[in-house]
Amino acid sequence: MKKWKTLSSELVFNNKWFKVQKDIVSLPNGKVIDDFFIWNSKDAAIIFALTSNRKIVLVKQYKHGSDSVMIECPAGYVENKETPEISIKREFMEETGYVVDSIAPLLSVVHHPTKETSKLHIFFSDSIKKSAVQNFDETEEIEVMEVPINKALDMIKDGQIWASGTICAIFLGLNKLGYRYEL
Amino acid sequence: MKKWKTLSSELVFNNKWFKVQKDIVSLPNGKVIDDFFIWNSKDAAIIFALTSNRKIVLVKQYKHGSDSVMIECPAGYVENKETPEISIKREFMEETGYVVDSIAPLLSVVHHPTKETSKLHIFFSDSIKKSAVQNFDETEEIEVMEVPINKALDMIKDGQIWASGTICAIFLGLNKLGYRYEL
Repeated sequence: MKKWKTLSSELVFNNKWFKVQKDIVSLPNGKVIDDFFIWNSKDAAIIFALTSNRKIVLVKQYKHGSDSVMIECPAGYVENKETPEISIKREFMEETGYVVDSIAPLLSVVHHPTKETSKLHIFFSDSIKKSAVQNFDETEEIEVMEVPINKALDMIKDGQIWASGTICAIFLGLNKLGYRYEL
Repeated sequence: MKKWKTLSSELVFNNKWFKVQKDIVSLPNGKVIDDFFIWNSKDAAIIFALTSNRKIVLVKQYKHGSDSVMIECPAGYVENKETPEISIKREFMEETGYVVDSIAPLLSVVHHPTKETSKLHIFFSDSIKKSAVQNFDETEEIEVMEVPINKALDMIKDGQIWASGTICAIFLGLNKLGYRYEL
Protein backbone atom coordinates (compact mmCIF):
# COMPACT_ATOMS: atom_id res chain seq x y z
CA MET A 1 0.00 0.00 0.00
CA LYS A 2 1.46 3.33 -1.10
CA LYS A 3 2.00 6.45 1.01
CA TRP A 4 0.88 9.88 -0.10
CA LYS A 5 3.57 12.21 -1.43
CA THR A 6 3.96 15.60 0.28
CA LEU A 7 4.45 18.25 -2.40
CA SER A 8 4.76 21.15 0.05
CA SER A 9 4.27 21.83 3.74
CA GLU A 10 3.69 25.21 5.37
CA LEU A 11 2.99 26.32 8.95
CA VAL A 12 -0.29 28.24 8.63
CA PHE A 13 -0.82 28.70 12.37
CA ASN A 14 2.42 29.13 14.25
CA ASN A 15 2.16 29.89 17.93
CA LYS A 16 4.55 28.76 20.66
CA TRP A 17 1.75 26.64 22.15
CA PHE A 18 -0.03 25.39 19.01
CA LYS A 19 1.12 24.83 15.43
CA VAL A 20 -0.94 23.81 12.39
CA GLN A 21 0.65 22.85 9.06
CA LYS A 22 -1.00 22.80 5.65
CA ASP A 23 0.29 20.15 3.27
CA ILE A 24 -0.26 19.85 -0.44
CA VAL A 25 -0.28 16.11 -1.10
CA SER A 26 -0.44 13.83 -4.10
CA LEU A 27 -2.37 10.57 -3.71
CA PRO A 28 -1.41 7.23 -5.34
CA ASN A 29 -4.42 7.63 -7.68
CA GLY A 30 -2.99 10.92 -8.97
CA LYS A 31 -5.40 13.20 -7.15
CA VAL A 32 -3.89 16.27 -5.49
CA ILE A 33 -5.28 17.65 -2.22
CA ASP A 34 -4.13 21.22 -1.73
CA ASP A 35 -5.29 21.81 1.83
CA PHE A 36 -4.58 18.89 4.13
CA PHE A 37 -4.26 20.28 7.68
CA ILE A 38 -2.22 18.60 10.40
CA TRP A 39 -1.63 19.49 14.03
CA ASN A 40 2.12 19.80 14.36
CA SER A 41 2.02 18.50 17.91
CA LYS A 42 4.69 17.66 20.46
CA ASP A 43 5.60 14.15 21.54
CA ALA A 44 4.56 13.19 25.04
CA ALA A 45 5.44 10.39 27.45
CA ILE A 46 3.33 8.54 30.01
CA ILE A 47 4.13 5.95 32.66
CA PHE A 48 2.41 2.90 34.13
CA ALA A 49 4.10 2.89 37.53
CA LEU A 50 3.46 0.36 40.25
CA THR A 51 4.29 0.82 43.94
CA SER A 52 5.97 -1.96 45.93
CA ASN A 53 2.51 -3.01 47.20
CA ARG A 54 1.17 -3.31 43.62
CA LYS A 55 -0.82 -0.12 43.37
CA ILE A 56 -0.92 2.00 40.20
CA VAL A 57 0.23 5.61 40.64
CA LEU A 58 -2.36 7.95 39.10
CA VAL A 59 -2.75 11.72 39.12
CA LYS A 60 -5.97 13.67 39.30
CA GLN A 61 -6.08 17.13 37.78
CA TYR A 62 -8.25 19.51 35.77
CA LYS A 63 -7.70 19.49 32.01
CA HIS A 64 -9.05 22.42 30.06
CA GLY A 65 -9.54 20.77 26.64
CA SER A 66 -12.00 18.23 27.99
CA ASP A 67 -13.16 20.71 30.70
CA SER A 68 -12.98 17.88 33.23
CA VAL A 69 -11.07 16.70 36.26
CA MET A 70 -9.20 13.70 34.82
CA ILE A 71 -7.61 10.68 36.50
CA GLU A 72 -4.60 9.62 34.46
CA CYS A 73 -1.22 7.96 34.54
CA PRO A 74 1.50 10.61 35.06
CA ALA A 75 2.50 12.14 31.73
CA GLY A 76 4.04 15.18 30.14
CA TYR A 77 5.44 16.66 26.96
CA VAL A 78 8.88 15.69 25.72
CA GLU A 79 10.77 18.96 25.83
CA ASN A 80 13.43 19.94 23.31
CA LYS A 81 16.60 17.89 23.50
CA GLU A 82 15.06 15.42 25.96
CA THR A 83 14.61 11.75 25.18
CA PRO A 84 11.14 10.42 26.05
CA GLU A 85 12.72 8.38 28.87
CA ILE A 86 14.42 11.38 30.49
CA SER A 87 11.24 13.38 30.04
CA ILE A 88 8.96 10.88 31.78
CA LYS A 89 11.39 10.39 34.68
CA ARG A 90 11.39 14.16 35.21
CA GLU A 91 7.61 14.57 34.88
CA PHE A 92 6.92 11.59 37.13
CA MET A 93 9.10 13.02 39.89
CA GLU A 94 7.64 16.51 39.53
CA GLU A 95 4.02 15.35 39.57
CA THR A 96 4.18 12.60 42.19
CA GLY A 97 7.35 12.94 44.25
CA TYR A 98 8.31 9.40 43.26
CA VAL A 99 11.69 8.54 41.78
CA VAL A 100 12.01 5.80 39.17
CA ASP A 101 14.83 3.31 39.57
CA SER A 102 14.45 1.32 36.37
CA ILE A 103 12.11 1.88 33.48
CA ALA A 104 11.15 -0.01 30.32
CA PRO A 105 9.47 1.24 27.12
CA LEU A 106 6.13 -0.46 26.35
CA LEU A 107 4.93 1.05 23.07
CA SER A 108 4.76 4.37 21.26
CA VAL A 109 1.24 5.17 20.09
CA VAL A 110 -0.42 7.85 17.98
CA HIS A 111 -3.79 9.35 18.91
CA HIS A 112 -4.88 10.93 15.61
CA PRO A 113 -2.96 9.25 12.79
CA THR A 114 -4.91 11.27 10.22
CA LYS A 115 -4.41 14.70 11.73
CA GLU A 116 -1.41 14.67 14.05
CA THR A 117 2.35 14.17 13.81
CA SER A 118 3.26 13.32 17.39
CA LYS A 119 3.56 10.14 19.39
CA LEU A 120 2.81 9.20 22.99
CA HIS A 121 5.64 7.09 24.40
CA ILE A 122 4.36 4.63 27.02
CA PHE A 123 6.71 3.45 29.77
CA PHE A 124 6.57 0.89 32.57
CA SER A 125 8.16 0.77 36.00
CA ASP A 126 7.58 -1.45 39.00
CA SER A 127 10.62 -0.14 40.79
CA ILE A 128 9.87 3.33 42.18
CA LYS A 129 10.53 4.96 45.52
CA LYS A 130 9.05 7.94 47.35
CA SER A 131 11.75 10.52 47.72
CA ALA A 132 11.53 13.95 46.22
CA VAL A 133 8.80 16.49 46.88
CA GLN A 134 6.27 17.34 44.20
CA ASN A 135 7.20 20.31 42.04
CA PHE A 136 4.31 21.51 39.89
CA ASP A 137 4.10 23.96 37.05
CA GLU A 138 2.13 27.03 38.04
CA THR A 139 -0.88 25.82 36.04
CA GLU A 140 -0.90 22.47 37.82
CA GLU A 141 -2.93 21.42 40.85
CA ILE A 142 -2.39 17.71 41.21
CA GLU A 143 -3.65 15.02 43.57
CA VAL A 144 -1.64 11.81 43.61
CA MET A 145 -3.59 8.55 43.96
CA GLU A 146 -2.40 4.99 44.53
CA VAL A 147 -5.02 2.63 43.19
CA PRO A 148 -5.17 -1.19 43.35
CA ILE A 149 -5.13 -2.88 39.95
CA ASN A 150 -8.70 -4.24 40.13
CA LYS A 151 -10.00 -0.85 41.22
CA ALA A 152 -8.28 0.84 38.26
CA LEU A 153 -9.93 -1.65 35.88
CA ASP A 154 -13.30 -0.85 37.49
CA MET A 155 -12.60 2.87 37.04
CA ILE A 156 -12.07 2.28 33.30
CA LYS A 157 -15.27 0.25 33.10
CA ASP A 158 -17.39 2.92 34.80
CA GLY A 159 -15.83 5.85 32.92
CA GLN A 160 -13.90 7.46 35.79
CA ILE A 161 -10.74 6.80 33.79
CA TRP A 162 -11.41 7.82 30.18
CA ALA A 163 -8.19 9.23 28.69
CA SER A 164 -7.08 6.91 25.88
CA GLY A 165 -3.35 7.15 26.68
CA THR A 166 -3.96 6.12 30.28
CA ILE A 167 -6.20 3.22 29.24
CA CYS A 168 -3.51 2.00 26.82
CA ALA A 169 -0.82 2.38 29.51
CA ILE A 170 -2.83 0.38 32.06
CA PHE A 171 -3.67 -2.52 29.72
CA LEU A 172 -0.16 -2.66 28.26
CA GLY A 173 1.36 -2.40 31.74
CA LEU A 174 -0.75 -5.31 32.96
CA ASN A 175 0.36 -7.38 29.97
CA LYS A 176 3.98 -6.57 30.80
CA LEU A 177 3.41 -7.68 34.40
CA GLY A 178 2.37 -11.06 33.07
CA TYR A 179 -1.37 -10.74 33.40
CA ARG A 180 -2.99 -12.49 30.47
CA TYR A 181 -6.39 -12.59 28.93
CA GLU A 182 -8.16 -15.90 29.42
CA LEU A 183 -8.85 -16.66 25.79
CA MET B 1 -10.95 19.97 42.74
CA LYS B 2 -12.01 23.13 40.93
CA LYS B 3 -12.32 23.65 37.18
CA TRP B 4 -10.79 26.62 35.40
CA LYS B 5 -13.17 29.41 34.43
CA THR B 6 -13.30 30.42 30.76
CA LEU B 7 -13.39 34.21 30.54
CA SER B 8 -13.51 34.30 26.74
CA SER B 9 -13.13 31.95 23.81
CA GLU B 10 -12.28 32.88 20.23
CA LEU B 11 -11.64 30.88 17.05
CA VAL B 12 -8.17 32.05 15.98
CA PHE B 13 -7.77 29.51 13.17
CA ASN B 14 -11.03 28.71 11.45
CA ASN B 15 -10.87 26.44 8.45
CA LYS B 16 -13.48 23.89 7.39
CA TRP B 17 -10.98 21.09 8.11
CA PHE B 18 -9.20 22.44 11.21
CA LYS B 19 -10.24 24.87 13.93
CA VAL B 20 -8.16 26.25 16.81
CA GLN B 21 -9.68 28.26 19.65
CA LYS B 22 -7.88 30.62 22.04
CA ASP B 23 -9.33 30.77 25.54
CA ILE B 24 -8.64 33.31 28.25
CA VAL B 25 -8.97 31.35 31.48
CA SER B 26 -8.91 32.06 35.18
CA LEU B 27 -7.34 29.43 37.45
CA PRO B 28 -8.54 28.55 40.97
CA ASN B 29 -5.40 30.25 42.37
CA GLY B 30 -6.44 33.51 40.70
CA LYS B 31 -3.89 33.40 37.91
CA VAL B 32 -5.16 34.36 34.44
CA ILE B 33 -3.81 32.67 31.30
CA ASP B 34 -4.61 34.77 28.26
CA ASP B 35 -3.55 32.38 25.51
CA PHE B 36 -4.67 28.81 26.12
CA PHE B 37 -5.00 27.11 22.72
CA ILE B 38 -7.32 24.19 22.08
CA TRP B 39 -7.97 22.12 18.97
CA ASN B 40 -11.69 22.46 18.36
CA SER B 41 -11.88 18.95 16.98
CA LYS B 42 -14.74 16.75 15.79
CA ASP B 43 -16.05 13.74 17.67
CA ALA B 44 -15.28 10.38 16.11
CA ALA B 45 -16.55 6.84 16.57
CA ILE B 46 -14.76 3.49 16.34
CA ILE B 47 -15.94 -0.12 16.48
CA PHE B 48 -14.60 -3.39 17.87
CA ALA B 49 -16.46 -5.76 15.54
CA LEU B 50 -16.21 -9.53 15.66
CA THR B 51 -17.15 -11.90 12.83
CA SER B 52 -19.19 -15.05 13.50
CA ASN B 53 -15.93 -17.04 13.61
CA ARG B 54 -14.47 -14.71 16.26
CA LYS B 55 -12.14 -12.60 14.14
CA ILE B 56 -11.69 -8.87 14.67
CA VAL B 57 -12.47 -6.70 11.62
CA LEU B 58 -9.59 -4.28 11.02
CA VAL B 59 -8.81 -1.85 8.21
CA LYS B 60 -5.42 -1.03 6.77
CA GLN B 61 -4.88 2.36 5.21
CA TYR B 62 -2.39 5.19 4.87
CA LYS B 63 -2.77 8.05 7.34
CA HIS B 64 -1.04 11.30 6.50
CA GLY B 65 -0.55 12.72 10.03
CA SER B 66 1.57 9.79 11.14
CA ASP B 67 2.83 9.29 7.56
CA SER B 68 2.26 5.54 7.98
CA VAL B 69 0.09 2.69 6.76
CA MET B 70 -2.00 2.00 9.88
CA ILE B 71 -3.97 -1.08 10.94
CA GLU B 72 -6.98 0.06 12.95
CA CYS B 73 -10.51 -0.73 13.98
CA PRO B 74 -12.97 0.89 11.54
CA ALA B 75 -13.65 4.49 12.53
CA GLY B 76 -14.79 7.84 11.26
CA TYR B 77 -15.88 11.31 12.21
CA VAL B 78 -19.34 11.96 13.58
CA GLU B 79 -20.90 14.23 10.98
CA ASN B 80 -23.32 17.04 11.79
CA LYS B 81 -26.70 15.85 13.06
CA GLU B 82 -25.53 12.25 13.33
CA THR B 83 -25.43 10.36 16.61
CA PRO B 84 -22.15 8.47 17.19
CA GLU B 85 -24.08 5.19 16.77
CA ILE B 86 -25.52 6.13 13.37
CA SER B 87 -22.13 7.45 12.34
CA ILE B 88 -20.21 4.27 13.15
CA LYS B 89 -22.79 2.03 11.49
CA ARG B 90 -22.44 4.10 8.31
CA GLU B 91 -18.63 4.24 8.40
CA PHE B 92 -18.34 0.53 9.16
CA MET B 93 -20.49 -0.37 6.16
CA GLU B 94 -18.68 2.04 3.85
CA GLU B 95 -15.20 0.89 4.88
CA THR B 96 -15.75 -2.86 5.19
CA GLY B 97 -18.95 -3.85 3.41
CA TYR B 98 -20.22 -5.35 6.68
CA VAL B 99 -23.61 -4.46 8.13
CA VAL B 100 -24.08 -4.27 11.90
CA ASP B 101 -27.17 -5.92 13.36
CA SER B 102 -26.84 -4.87 16.98
CA ILE B 103 -24.32 -2.58 18.61
CA ALA B 104 -23.42 -1.54 22.17
CA PRO B 105 -21.48 1.49 23.43
CA LEU B 106 -18.30 0.61 25.36
CA LEU B 107 -16.80 3.94 26.45
CA SER B 108 -16.21 7.46 25.18
CA VAL B 109 -12.57 8.50 25.53
CA VAL B 110 -10.55 11.66 25.00
CA HIS B 111 -7.09 11.59 23.42
CA HIS B 112 -5.69 14.98 24.48
CA PRO B 113 -7.65 16.19 27.52
CA THR B 114 -5.37 19.24 27.79
CA LYS B 115 -5.61 20.41 24.21
CA GLU B 116 -8.69 18.96 22.56
CA THR B 117 -12.46 19.20 22.92
CA SER B 118 -13.62 16.06 21.14
CA LYS B 119 -14.34 12.50 22.17
CA LEU B 120 -13.86 9.13 20.54
CA HIS B 121 -16.95 6.97 21.04
CA ILE B 122 -16.06 3.28 21.19
CA PHE B 123 -18.63 0.67 20.15
CA PHE B 124 -18.88 -3.11 20.21
CA SER B 125 -20.63 -5.58 17.94
CA ASP B 126 -20.42 -9.36 17.65
CA SER B 127 -23.38 -9.52 15.33
CA ILE B 128 -22.35 -8.37 11.85
CA LYS B 129 -22.99 -9.72 8.37
CA LYS B 130 -21.30 -9.30 5.00
CA SER B 131 -23.73 -7.59 2.71
CA ALA B 132 -23.09 -4.22 1.16
CA VAL B 133 -20.17 -3.34 -1.05
CA GLN B 134 -17.44 -1.02 0.20
CA ASN B 135 -17.96 2.62 -0.65
CA PHE B 136 -14.86 4.71 0.01
CA ASP B 137 -14.27 8.42 0.07
CA GLU B 138 -12.03 9.50 -2.78
CA THR B 139 -9.08 9.89 -0.40
CA GLU B 140 -9.49 6.35 0.93
CA GLU B 141 -7.71 3.20 -0.19
CA ILE B 142 -8.64 0.54 2.32
CA GLU B 143 -7.77 -3.12 2.83
CA VAL B 144 -10.12 -5.05 5.12
CA MET B 145 -8.52 -7.64 7.40
CA GLU B 146 -10.09 -10.29 9.62
CA VAL B 147 -7.69 -11.10 12.41
CA PRO B 148 -7.94 -13.76 15.16
CA ILE B 149 -7.99 -12.32 18.69
CA ASN B 150 -4.60 -13.72 19.73
CA LYS B 151 -3.00 -12.44 16.54
CA ALA B 152 -4.40 -8.93 17.17
CA LEU B 153 -2.91 -8.96 20.68
CA ASP B 154 0.45 -9.99 19.17
CA MET B 155 0.15 -7.13 16.66
CA ILE B 156 -0.25 -4.68 19.56
CA LYS B 157 2.72 -6.19 21.34
CA ASP B 158 5.02 -5.91 18.33
CA GLY B 159 3.86 -2.43 17.31
CA GLN B 160 1.97 -3.31 14.11
CA ILE B 161 -1.14 -1.92 15.79
CA TRP B 162 -0.20 1.38 17.46
CA ALA B 163 -3.19 3.75 17.24
CA SER B 164 -4.40 4.44 20.78
CA GLY B 165 -8.10 4.39 19.90
CA THR B 166 -7.78 0.95 18.31
CA ILE B 167 -5.80 -0.40 21.26
CA CYS B 168 -8.49 0.87 23.66
CA ALA B 169 -11.25 -0.61 21.47
CA ILE B 170 -9.57 -4.03 21.37
CA PHE B 171 -8.92 -4.28 25.12
CA LEU B 172 -12.37 -2.91 26.03
CA GLY B 173 -14.00 -5.18 23.45
CA LEU B 174 -12.25 -8.22 24.92
CA ASN B 175 -13.44 -7.24 28.39
CA LYS B 176 -17.00 -6.96 27.07
CA LEU B 177 -16.68 -10.44 25.54
CA GLY B 178 -15.94 -11.75 28.99
CA TYR B 179 -12.18 -12.18 28.70
CA ARG B 180 -10.64 -11.33 32.04
CA TYR B 181 -7.21 -10.56 33.29
CA GLU B 182 -5.81 -13.27 35.53
CA LEU B 183 -5.03 -11.13 38.51
